[in-house]
Amino acid sequence: MQDIAARRARLLGPHMTTFYREPVHVARGEGVWLWDTEGRQYLDCYNNVPHVGHCHPRVVDAIAKQAATLNTHTRYVHDAILDYGEALTAKFEHDLESMMMVCSGSEANDLALRMAQVMTGKTGIIGTDNTYHGNTTAVSQLNSSKLPIGGYQDHVRQVPAPDNMVPVGGSREGQAEAFAKGVEKAIAELEASGHGVSALIVCPYFANEGFPTLERGFLDRAVAAVRKAGGLIIADEVQPGFGRIGSHWWGHEKLGFAPDIVTLGKPMANGHPVAAVVTRLEILTAFQEQFKYFNTFGGNPVSAAAAMAVLNVIEDENLISNAADVGAYTVDLLHDVASRHEVIADVRGSGLFFGAELWRDGKPATKLCSLMVDEMRERGVLLHSEGRHDNTLKIRPPCVFDRANADQLAETLDAALEAVT
Amino acid sequence: MQDIAARRARLLGPHMTTFYREPVHVARGEGVWLWDTEGRQYLDCYNNVPHVGHCHPRVVDAIAKQAATLNTHTRYVHDAILDYGEALTAKFEHDLESMMMVCSGSEANDLALRMAQVMTGKTGIIGTDNTYHGNTTAVSQLNSSKLPIGGYQDHVRQVPAPDNMVPVGGSREGQAEAFAKGVEKAIAELEASGHGVSALIVCPYFANEGFPTLERGFLDRAVAAVRKAGGLIIADEVQPGFGRIGSHWWGHEKLGFAPDIVTLGKPMANGHPVAAVVTRLEILTAFQEQFKYFNTFGGNPVSAAAAMAVLNVIEDENLISNAADVGAYTVDLLHDVASRHEVIADVRGSGLFFGAELWRDGKPATKLCSLMVDEMRERGVLLHSEGRHDNTLKIRPPCVFDRANADQLAETLDAALEAVT
Repeated sequence: MQDIAARRARLLGPHMTTFYREPVHVARGEGVWLWDTEGRQYLDCYNNVPHVGHCHPRVVDAIAKQAATLNTHTRYVHDAILDYGEALTAKFEHDLESMMMVCSGSEANDLALRMAQVMTGKTGIIGTDNTYHGNTTAVSQLNSSKLPIGGYQDHVRQVPAPDNMVPVGGSREGQAEAFAKGVEKAIAELEASGHGVSALIVCPYFANEGFPTLERGFLDRAVAAVRKAGGLIIADEVQPGFGRIGSHWWGHEKLGFAPDIVTLGKPMANGHPVAAVVTRLEILTAFQEQFKYFNTFGGNPVSAAAAMAVLNVIEDENLISNAADVGAYTVDLLHDVASRHEVIADVRGSGLFFGAELWRDGKPATKLCSLMVDEMRERGVLLHSEGRHDNTLKIRPPCVFDRANADQLAETLDAALEAVT
Repeated sequence: MQDIAARRARLLGPHMTTFYREPVHVARGEGVWLWDTEGRQYLDCYNNVPHVGHCHPRVVDAIAKQAATLNTHTRYVHDAILDYGEALTAKFEHDLESMMMVCSGSEANDLALRMAQVMTGKTGIIGTDNTYHGNTTAVSQLNSSKLPIGGYQDHVRQVPAPDNMVPVGGSREGQAEAFAKGVEKAIAELEASGHGVSALIVCPYFANEGFPTLERGFLDRAVAAVRKAGGLIIADEVQPGFGRIGSHWWGHEKLGFAPDIVTLGKPMANGHPVAAVVTRLEILTAFQEQFKYFNTFGGNPVSAAAAMAVLNVIEDENLISNAADVGAYTVDLLHDVASRHEVIADVRGSGLFFGAELWRDGKPATKLCSLMVDEMRERGVLLHSEGRHDNTLKIRPPCVFDRANADQLAETLDAALEAVT
């Protein structure tokens, strides 16, 4: 492993981080399971990219067959992207009937922001603090990481994101109003500086913010303020989308608002590099009239086939109801564990996306959370941490996670907390 | 086909262009061949993405096997990205020993520009006019398309690119000096405006500019000026790279300069969405100290396996010497065709990347070039157009192109010119 660490540091850079104190040297995956090169088995409670399970045979077959038949770009005509586009847009309730396929969630969000700017003729963008929407230059402006060279651009505003333990505005009840006030303040600033508001971009599950528990309608006032200012709403569904949250296909349905643009990524093709922007035809048309956007790999026959296989598996294996059922079962188990460990200050989530927030002595237990992540790994369960203080155990397994997997997770968590605290 | 056109317009937008007056409805590919859904066979003289031939069995096998075994991101440790990184960086002659894998050439160039800004602490970027480096918001600033919303940013400068028929500065002999003067003027402007120069980014084959014939050393004075101003040199090898030009692995070797950062894309994994930034460890390290860049799909085991298969096939099938041999043979045939058709004003290229520029009555024959592209398609040969006036037939086939293919290309071109002119 030391040899590998040295090779990584030289090739990929010394600061290319790995998960866990002792990184997992992975060799094989199947369903919810990963195996390392020594043959040790791990329960994967973290990876959302293999949405329908590691190496799902139907997705593997779709990729292998199409790769052996044809893989070229969309300046020729091919049925796969059209068949997929029709199947995908049929999953949206309202007028999101068009799409552009790209290669990553970063490309999708970068494109969505440009579409909003073209459609509105304005440049201002509002996001939340403590978030992540991707890694391009433009999208990085929305991330809460280090200051870009040249500083944050003046057209970007970050508003305080909701939180379960330290709610914006001081109380969970008043949080929607407080969040909307933050958005309204940003709108006023962007209008005063001449940028105007092109879009509010949010993950409708506030996944990187720590997935706080939010009522349906939480965003209504904020959304209305943005629309009144002439801006669009972009829902970044990279994390909650494709039924992970159990109750709906998309996070925005659960919160009850209608975005103008939806971005999709990681789970879309189970690991094959595919992402998309789904929007109204009028927005896509306005954008195409301004820019000749073309994405060489986006929506190629192999990418479309892989994505179609994922969509079919979600339906044929009833993975959304599985997420609802096993998710609820798991949250009950987590509450049970929390009743024995007061360090768990909050258990929350929806479908197969949930977590346990750790506090000790009235403070976020960030270090303990990090210890727990490693302790769980030592005990054969892979998860990670998230949230404003990085003190929430983030649990987000492949959607084929079952009740027996949940039992193993809860038992291991119980034992690990016993050992670490 | 009308039904498909309507589906495309609704799903992908009315301005999502296709190649050819009558788009090709592709069904299958193998080597240099494409077949449409009616079973008609086409000689593919345009696609550089299937670098080692459409559906090369070794690449398909590598993808299928790895997709069935494991596909996850690089925060776990896996050998595939390290094995590939070592094999790839071994193909560079100087100190480019580190890399980051991403999903597209756009992501690679976006990242390269940020690396240059971090490394130099400056923001100015110099590119060429009439070029294309990708589709992210930041990289689009370098493209010669419509004005971005908010206008071109002040830190970007476009200098006149070299050209065979209308050389910068008036003569082919004086073109290197004239180009360098353009770069020096841009440097002075960027320094005066406080941006400074972070990088000059060029395709070392000036592929989108129409691949003018350039002497070794062409860029020397421009490169020296950028270095003197503290800037870095980014070589966008997406089109010339991986041996296409026949004489070298990379375009910058042919021109004889040593870039600080190289970007790779399209041909890297024969169509699988893979790209990379190759650079010095010190640049990568400086960037990682500033930004926590992570690319979920970039360098995953399947992407790395696909890219490794391409590298192995290039070597095992001697595709670089094939590009040199068949390329030279083809250029001779094109000169022969040109001797019978005075509309061909210039034949040029290197390896399997060449073209014929069309002029008539002392003017670029843009419309004739477009007619020829369609006429060739009707006659079963796929190529396209390029250059400042879009009047150059762009010929860039998969690197398994052989002499019989070249004969078919030349004969078809001869007959098509006869028919169209």
